[in-house]
Amino acid sequence: MSTTGKVIKCKAAVAWEDGKPLTIEEVEVAPPQEHEVRIKIVATGVCHTDLHFLYTSHRKGGFPCILGHEGAGIVESVGPGVTKFKPGDKVIPVFVSQCGECKNCRSPRSNLCDNSWWSKQQYDGKTEPLGRITCKGRRIIQFEGLGTFAEYSIVYEIAVAKIDDDAPLDKVCLLGCGVSTGYGAALNSAKVQPGSTCAVFGLGAVGLAAVMGCQAAGASRIIAVDINKDKSSKAKEFGATDFVNPNDHDKPIQEVLSSLTDGGVDYSFECVGNVELMVSALEACNKSWGVSVIVGWNNTEMLSVSPVQMIGGRRWTGTVFGGWKSVESVPKLVADYMAKRIKLDEFITHTLPLEGVNDAFDLMTAGKSIRTILKM
Amino acid sequence: MSTTGKVIKCKAAVAWEDGKPLTIEEVEVAPPQEHEVRIKIVATGVCHTDLHFLYTSHRKGGFPCILGHEGAGIVESVGPGVTKFKPGDKVIPVFVSQCGECKNCRSPRSNLCDNSWWSKQQYDGKTEPLGRITCKGRRIIQFEGLGTFAEYSIVYEIAVAKIDDDAPLDKVCLLGCGVSTGYGAALNSAKVQPGSTCAVFGLGAVGLAAVMGCQAAGASRIIAVDINKDKSSKAKEFGATDFVNPNDHDKPIQEVLSSLTDGGVDYSFECVGNVELMVSALEACNKSWGVSVIVGWNNTEMLSVSPVQMIGGRRWTGTVFGGWKSVESVPKLVADYMAKRIKLDEFITHTLPLEGVNDAFDLMTAGKSIRTILKM
Repeated sequence: MSTTGKVIKCKAAVAWEDGKPLTIEEVEVAPPQEHEVRIKIVATGVCHTDLHFLYTSHRKGGFPCILGHEGAGIVESVGPGVTKFKPGDKVIPVFVSQCGECKNCRSPRSNLCDNSWWSKQQYDGKTEPLGRITCKGRRIIQFEGLGTFAEYSIVYEIAVAKIDDDAPLDKVCLLGCGVSTGYGAALNSAKVQPGSTCAVFGLGAVGLAAVMGCQAAGASRIIAVDINKDKSSKAKEFGATDFVNPNDHDKPIQEVLSSLTDGGVDYSFECVGNVELMVSALEACNKSWGVSVIVGWNNTEMLSVSPVQMIGGRRWTGTVFGGWKSVESVPKLVADYMAKRIKLDEFITHTLPLEGVNDAFDLMTAGKSIRTILKM
Repeated sequence: MSTTGKVIKCKAAVAWEDGKPLTIEEVEVAPPQEHEVRIKIVATGVCHTDLHFLYTSHRKGGFPCILGHEGAGIVESVGPGVTKFKPGDKVIPVFVSQCGECKNCRSPRSNLCDNSWWSKQQYDGKTEPLGRITCKGRRIIQFEGLGTFAEYSIVYEIAVAKIDDDAPLDKVCLLGCGVSTGYGAALNSAKVQPGSTCAVFGLGAVGLAAVMGCQAAGASRIIAVDINKDKSSKAKEFGATDFVNPNDHDKPIQEVLSSLTDGGVDYSFECVGNVELMVSALEACNKSWGVSVIVGWNNTEMLSVSPVQMIGGRRWTGTVFGGWKSVESVPKLVADYMAKRIKLDEFITHTLPLEGVNDAFDLMTAGKSIRTILKM
């Protein structure tokens, strides 16, 4: 049954206003226009960034909105000019696109495609690059250009990665954001060296993936840091050699880590999005050569730090999607999972239907889940 | 005439209290003890850090003090155990030592010798590692373990670099701090790549040396930034291709530079010590791969910046003494000057006797000097 050219009516979880639970609605997804791909979403992870947006996007007028940006699905139809995809292809839509032609795509030093959704969609309630989804007569914003908390979505072809036909979509969807981000933070952004010492702050999916990346890079010591003591065994499953709970110490965590490692770790990763913790992570690394990577997202608060913390040569940087060039890298990461070179199943603690999206947020807030997968 | 073993009475410029002019006093310099070297200072540069300390060190009780840390001289005598130096050797005392044995000296990734003066001298008015200089019965603190605004000083042997017998001390003294710092910031800390675009904020000696370092590294565009328009021609003498005065623009300087360079420079250098300017320098570099180096010293104020400024991959770091391992590198830098590979004479705008030290501060504050040399 082909639905090409027709509007699809389907279910989606819609965020109507700041901080309120999502509601399941019938939405209309228009046919794909030029260089657009309509995707039947099969599974999607629920990421902390979705929740963060729900509580901060009012500042940008970003409602009504379909959240979700960690999905996997099957191409339903393609618009004119799309040659790389055909109905039936398994794909992962990606919030960082890869057009292959912009200055950043052409540089080996950047994965921030200039034609990604943020170059077009302003969250001002007016400009929407796609505007293909409506609900009750209103245009719905697709979070990060995707909006995967829905049975169907529609995205630019430059934001779609074609993956292995045998890939289990309810697992590899995690490669659409969190796992790729943390894993790449270690491998691409920090470029962790064999034999080095690392610290990972915050053991959600992103942090655990960073631990996995440090292990893949050959780090000899990986210190996992979280105020939730229940995370210890999970962290060790992913490769952590030590677990430190800041609440078990009177000293600031950066001093604890500095003592443990004779002057600080070689690499540290902040995987929470807390500005004070970002400063702690910086200060926890070696004052001459330590590299600290901001992985957690926070666009609402400011860092406050003395320049002396960097003067000796520490390096502070960040990562978006782990530095991976999305369209070319996601299929390789899927292949790595299929070949058992990286873990995915171990991140998944809960599986719910789309209707369980608010429960997934509650589990996340309570620290009870690593990743919840919504299956359509 | 040997004075070994005897106290030397000589002149020094002494800072007695916060923010007050220095006074020329007769001081007593004790004979060198074990692993110490007594140096007849021949010439010294006057650096902004001296002035900064004069106005901020009251917070640490750092008086009375002999400022000055950019000197060159001749070994007068050595204490027991000193084998690398003999009376008559030309030397540059260095504020970052190089013991060769600590963890940092053994690492190629650090120049911050763990046995440098700061590991011993606390500026608390009580602990002084040397305590060899007195005036009017009071022990005098030697700024940064050196105190070169004096006819004689005494320093640890690990903080002395032996240089070419033919080197003109009234020129190469600049390699004791400012020029080495700016030059190394580009070459060692940023590792500027050939063909890249750079911006240098603040065109004192350190900034001009950073310009020179960018040129030596093969940068194709070097944008010099200063609110003093008189710095333009000097900057171009050192290799700048562009000069931008922020006061000539309505937009913030980071936006001006971003427009000029299609998204920001590859490398930026803050050579003033102003926290707002450090943030501007960060934001002026490419959001994916830009490297911003904090070169100016500021230990009294905090940086305030959004983490989003680093999330795309920008790297923020700093430099102490340009990343040079001091004892082994300073003689090579002197050789580079002797072979005309680096400029020094062009930094020197004024030469004064020791008694002119307060005038040197006034010239610096007024932006009329690049470097003033005090000749003893």
